[in-house]
Amino acid sequence: MTEPLFARLAVIGLGLIGSSVTRRALHPTPGQAQPIAGEVVAYDASPAVQARARELGIAHRVAEDAADAVRDADCVMLCVPVGAMGRVAAELLPHMKAGAILTDVGSTKQSVIREIRPLLPDGIAFVPGHPLAGTEYSGPDAGFATLFDGRWSLLTPLEDGDPAAAARVARLWQLCGAQTQEMEPAHHDKVLAIVSHLPHLIAFTICSTADDLEGESRAEVLRFAASGFRDFTRIAASDPVMWRDVFLNNKEALLEMLARFSEDAQALARAIRWGDEAFIVDRIERGRRIRRSLIELNQA
Amino acid sequence: MTEPLFARLAVIGLGLIGSSVTRRALHPTPGQAQPIAGEVVAYDASPAVQARARELGIAHRVAEDAADAVRDADCVMLCVPVGAMGRVAAELLPHMKAGAILTDVGSTKQSVIREIRPLLPDGIAFVPGHPLAGTEYSGPDAGFATLFDGRWSLLTPLEDGDPAAAARVARLWQLCGAQTQEMEPAHHDKVLAIVSHLPHLIAFTICSTADDLEGESRAEVLRFAASGFRDFTRIAASDPVMWRDVFLNNKEALLEMLARFSEDAQALARAIRWGDEAFIVDRIERGRRIRRSLIELNQA
Repeated sequence: MTEPLFARLAVIGLGLIGSSVTRRALHPTPGQAQPIAGEVVAYDASPAVQARARELGIAHRVAEDAADAVRDADCVMLCVPVGAMGRVAAELLPHMKAGAILTDVGSTKQSVIREIRPLLPDGIAFVPGHPLAGTEYSGPDAGFATLFDGRWSLLTPLEDGDPAAAARVARLWQLCGAQTQEMEPAHHDKVLAIVSHLPHLIAFTICSTADDLEGESRAEVLRFAASGFRDFTRIAASDPVMWRDVFLNNKEALLEMLARFSEDAQALARAIRWGDEAFIVDRIERGRRIRRSLIELNQA
Repeated sequence: MTEPLFARLAVIGLGLIGSSVTRRALHPTPGQAQPIAGEVVAYDASPAVQARARELGIAHRVAEDAADAVRDADCVMLCVPVGAMGRVAAELLPHMKAGAILTDVGSTKQSVIREIRPLLPDGIAFVPGHPLAGTEYSGPDAGFATLFDGRWSLLTPLEDGDPAAAARVARLWQLCGAQTQEMEPAHHDKVLAIVSHLPHLIAFTICSTADDLEGESRAEVLRFAASGFRDFTRIAASDPVMWRDVFLNNKEALLEMLARFSEDAQALARAIRWGDEAFIVDRIERGRRIRRSLIELNQA
């Protein structure tokens, strides 16, 4: 078999994404062109998560401290909430070897670049990334090796970054089963605001709205949730710290998309109030058209 | 085997719900306590749907006109959009036999009662109903006999209605595989506004918002929809006429729930703008709590 892509890969943060990467790197799929890593070292700031990761056997080694985890690693992947990226990078970078690659999986890219770029020493290439994959579950038990199969992983390389390093990170995601695409960081944040961040904001909100209903109605929301609410709110089970950080770190794009959505919702509400049937049908038809496009794109 | 619940059942409107009822009535499940109907007569105003229903063989007989369909039926079930209920009931009632039961499956109950009650002749019992079941598909091809298995069917009987008729309609839904519950019409409309109508309004709206994005972003919404948007908008594929009518006929409750939701969304937006982490986490935690309750109730 070919040489591994990286002799040693360090994964920092063992939630859904991090523990899926270590699992995939530990167990190449049959027919995979190249192993991702010769050695997979994992680290999580929580001793309980470290212990669980050892029990699960999801890495060759689970380090007890972060410096030890990244020492001699050829690639260090940050899988922590975006609000922690700057702090964690500052802690790790002094212990990384020259020539190593730092990458991340954060859902917001401008904020991560803003925090990490000023910290970068010479000899460390930073390649910001974001695999578009996940479930509503979190933690080291939630990960699985096939999470990235057929999904996209977006890379938002720095303009003055190292193209060879970006190519190696792209290769890592391809070996995880994903397709990759490069994108401007600001454009990434705008697209993700509408395809992911706003839907999560709405799902969390409508759950709160339901939670505020008076006793009997509230119980009946739960009982009769199959009528749309249940599927609609599945994503509301996602990790709180991760999502708090995403909201705070993609504030501008998210608030802009929420403002557009709110205008559109108010326009539909007004049409309902005044019985403007043509407007209502037009909005519904547009929804169906988008859904059909999704189905044609083989995503649904 | 026991006598059928109804000697003749007429189903008016052969969309997802109507054609699922005829399929179930035509093919009792193994072990079913009692057949639903000795004869299943189906009717749809569209000649194309009539022809397709005949091809599919989803009823003993597909009538060519509505009067013929309901003549001698012991139970007539209206499965048309709620905006058409009054008109269709007015057309059919003169042809129904004394002692027959009229029922419906509309998603709004106050409006249907308001329209049908004044039309009722002596000798016809009206039992308003609403099976909480569906998919994002519509039309006679979309129905299937097991659609109602394990679902709820709500009945909102008139205060001066016939309890024996309500019991027979409840029995019909139970034979379809559903659990039944009686509810006040106004309460029904309020609960459905939050568990179904508002999620649909939001799903249609966010699709429109995405559809309005400039060229490249719009294409990328489709490409990267797996990040939440896709599942979140599944219900946006639902039938336009049905949903136009639901929105217009549950206006008060829906606009009230949208107003509450919008206040909650604005409060979360404000917390994001000003970095109120505790508020944000509280909202997310509440969303997760509701989701967990759904899972515990074995609905998810």
